[in-house]
Amino acid sequence: MADLAKLKADLAGIAIEDNPAIVKQKSRDFFWYSPVLKRQLDHVVGDLVVTPKDEAEVIRVLAAAHAHGVAVTPRGAGTGNYGQAMPLAGGIVLNLAEMNKVTAIAPGRVVAEPGVIMAKLDAETRAHSGQELRLHPSTANTASVGGFVAGGSGGVGSIRWGGLRDLGNVIRLRIVTMEASPRTLELSRFDLHKVSHAYGTNGIITEVEMPLAPAYDWVDVLVGFDDWMDAVRYADALGNEDGILTKEIATVAAPAPFDYFLRHQKFLKREQSVVIVMVAPHSLDAFLAFTGREKGEIVFRADTAQDLKGLPPAFELAWNHTTLRALRVDPSITYLQVMYPFPDHQKKVARMTELLGDEVPGHLEFVRFDGKVIPMGLPMVRFSTEERLDEIIRIHEEEGCPIFNPHRYTLEEGGMKQTDDVQLAFKREADPDGLLNPGKMIAWEDPNFDYRAKKTFLFPGLQAAG
Amino acid sequence: MADLAKLKADLAGIAIEDNPAIVKQKSRDFFWYSPVLKRQLDHVVGDLVVTPKDEAEVIRVLAAAHAHGVAVTPRGAGTGNYGQAMPLAGGIVLNLAEMNKVTAIAPGRVVAEPGVIMAKLDAETRAHSGQELRLHPSTANTASVGGFVAGGSGGVGSIRWGGLRDLGNVIRLRIVTMEASPRTLELSRFDLHKVSHAYGTNGIITEVEMPLAPAYDWVDVLVGFDDWMDAVRYADALGNEDGILTKEIATVAAPAPFDYFLRHQKFLKREQSVVIVMVAPHSLDAFLAFTGREKGEIVFRADTAQDLKGLPPAFELAWNHTTLRALRVDPSITYLQVMYPFPDHQKKVARMTELLGDEVPGHLEFVRFDGKVIPMGLPMVRFSTEERLDEIIRIHEEEGCPIFNPHRYTLEEGGMKQTDDVQLAFKREADPDGLLNPGKMIAWEDPNFDYRAKKTFLFPGLQAAG
Repeated sequence: MADLAKLKADLAGIAIEDNPAIVKQKSRDFFWYSPVLKRQLDHVVGDLVVTPKDEAEVIRVLAAAHAHGVAVTPRGAGTGNYGQAMPLAGGIVLNLAEMNKVTAIAPGRVVAEPGVIMAKLDAETRAHSGQELRLHPSTANTASVGGFVAGGSGGVGSIRWGGLRDLGNVIRLRIVTMEASPRTLELSRFDLHKVSHAYGTNGIITEVEMPLAPAYDWVDVLVGFDDWMDAVRYADALGNEDGILTKEIATVAAPAPFDYFLRHQKFLKREQSVVIVMVAPHSLDAFLAFTGREKGEIVFRADTAQDLKGLPPAFELAWNHTTLRALRVDPSITYLQVMYPFPDHQKKVARMTELLGDEVPGHLEFVRFDGKVIPMGLPMVRFSTEERLDEIIRIHEEEGCPIFNPHRYTLEEGGMKQTDDVQLAFKREADPDGLLNPGKMIAWEDPNFDYRAKKTFLFPGLQAAG
Repeated sequence: MADLAKLKADLAGIAIEDNPAIVKQKSRDFFWYSPVLKRQLDHVVGDLVVTPKDEAEVIRVLAAAHAHGVAVTPRGAGTGNYGQAMPLAGGIVLNLAEMNKVTAIAPGRVVAEPGVIMAKLDAETRAHSGQELRLHPSTANTASVGGFVAGGSGGVGSIRWGGLRDLGNVIRLRIVTMEASPRTLELSRFDLHKVSHAYGTNGIITEVEMPLAPAYDWVDVLVGFDDWMDAVRYADALGNEDGILTKEIATVAAPAPFDYFLRHQKFLKREQSVVIVMVAPHSLDAFLAFTGREKGEIVFRADTAQDLKGLPPAFELAWNHTTLRALRVDPSITYLQVMYPFPDHQKKVARMTELLGDEVPGHLEFVRFDGKVIPMGLPMVRFSTEERLDEIIRIHEEEGCPIFNPHRYTLEEGGMKQTDDVQLAFKREADPDGLLNPGKMIAWEDPNFDYRAKKTFLFPGLQAAG
């Protein structure tokens, strides 16, 4: 057992919290989306929460933790869904929320500390020069930009820009290593993949440089379809309209929109599937023409609605907020993350609907993936047992729909992040004692783990980059 | 014969030019790119050039011309390649160059008169709010925005936004009809297709509303490849990189870049094919990483070049400027417009290279088309005879590569614009006497013309819009 008293003494002057209730609260994220993770991780708790206010303090924390052999798990805003920020080995929860300054804004780019809330960052860049982040999760109002880079993959904006995995969607990361004398490293280009979506297992992000896109007054629209596959075809076609600028296109199968989008319920019909769209004002006319031709029923338009009071923005109906709203109404609901590969994606969606029906209510997020528009599934699952959940996963995989399993807390088992020799070598360099977020990288914990197994990963391994 | 003296009297107060040399000059466009059109159209000349300064004068001109049964052919800057602005039936050349004001700029949109030069428009929107047109031809420094809408199809920016055919890439057009009492009509949504790329055959555009994109300081880069198909694969892959913001991606097969891009020759190797790229500064790092991995040799970068004096911008190496530069060195060169349909586009490019070799040097412009990245071919052709040119076209079509024939001056034969009942009905409404740019719409001239023939058109017919 490490000597926490000595560690605390070493951290004199840095904000430390060891009130058990607060430490417990800051040791959790949205892992409870998964009944499996809820069972596995509910007990997880760190020893203390340390809140550095700048990089110099991060360096002091890591040096001290290294000296005492104490684990450090970084935390942004704790909005991850897979225990990304949960300290499996106890130790320090490194709360980066106070490193929340936007440092520089230029055409097409922003430099910021990791703890800034994404909506706040967007407000600053919008006020400065009419710009905003290309991508944000549906939790933009509470999530931090560093947490998004370290634990996210894409979200609102991915229909235009792809995901965090894609070259160009992160420009630069500055990290601090976990060593006796922590170093700072500047990562760019393919090296970004060493840290993106690595849950802080190989360095603490202290600065991000992200690309910006123009900030428009996006118009929220909901389009109703009596038939689920009509909604899917419409959303797909809309995503392929090169001249219509959208930031979000999602489909949710009936009756979930009516049953779970309670604040919008007055606009919805229970038997209609819904397409959630954010469209640029200067593309609205073209969007309405397209939607009319495709026989979509506009059931809600934020620009002409009588009363928006109490209505969340459309993006808070999408991505993981779809699941969240479902969970609030029906706590037995969980979800999956599914890829429907191009070009047979529509057929695969239809097939899964046919095989699993209302046990797995459809929810698709249309994104650009390797240049093509495809639906990424975040289907809801009416959970019964872990065995049945695994069976549902197996059914998807057998039908050629890879699963990024949100019921696993390791990088590799989640399936998003491929570990390879380059990644492991970097871990040995940046965190030789394995003290950063221990337990999340199987290939590190278990030397016999075969990370070369063929499998679809969202964030590819680094060796291919050459 | 119309009474031109009376017509002129009716136009008192409006700028009229009847100096034969000037009228001849203003009766021509870049039709001489085609040896076929050069033979067919070289004699074409109008009777007088009329230069209205505002919409009221346009209305007066059309009313007077209608009264006297005189044809009117609108002209922007005369940079079309198919005789779009050439007055086959003589009469008035309606020169819109003096209607050149930018009227309004807002986030994502601009309103302008038709005669404004696109580079000037971009300079104004850039100074106003860091915006620019989504699309422009390689002739942006001389071409007018109205001419682009009436006679163009896409260009620089199409890798991001598709073409003028796509919903959303024109927001609104205001036109004047050719009647005893000309009316003004506002067209939007699918009705835009009545006038887009119709060469002014069914209304004179007096105002355009176009979408804007952010104006970045695009970096010109040339990337060399020893193998033509390596260049093609690289360009295709770059176009599919969702996070790398480019405005232009073109490939030109060796030895054309060295032989024809004389001002850039010092950077080039004769045996290398070249990829022409415009990339956003905040994507440059990602672009360089990608290019390194793909083994592209950066032979020119405008941001680090020692001396840019005398170098044209990269977009003036692309689109029709590729042909123009080739023509200047070798006047026997002409070109074609080829579509290589997704997903077999690479194979088709390789096949045409194999079949036609150096007789048809490769030039591809990568664009988004129905949501997918494909190469649109503007291959150069070492012209021998019209019969061989037709044979080359047939070879393309037999291999599944539709041709938009730039050696035809009618809408239908050019293959860009589909005429249908809706289009014809609109022509009857907007130009009942057929006085607008006569001779360009076969379906109007020849009631027996079968416009229902199956063929690939860039601008689809209007009936599908429902």
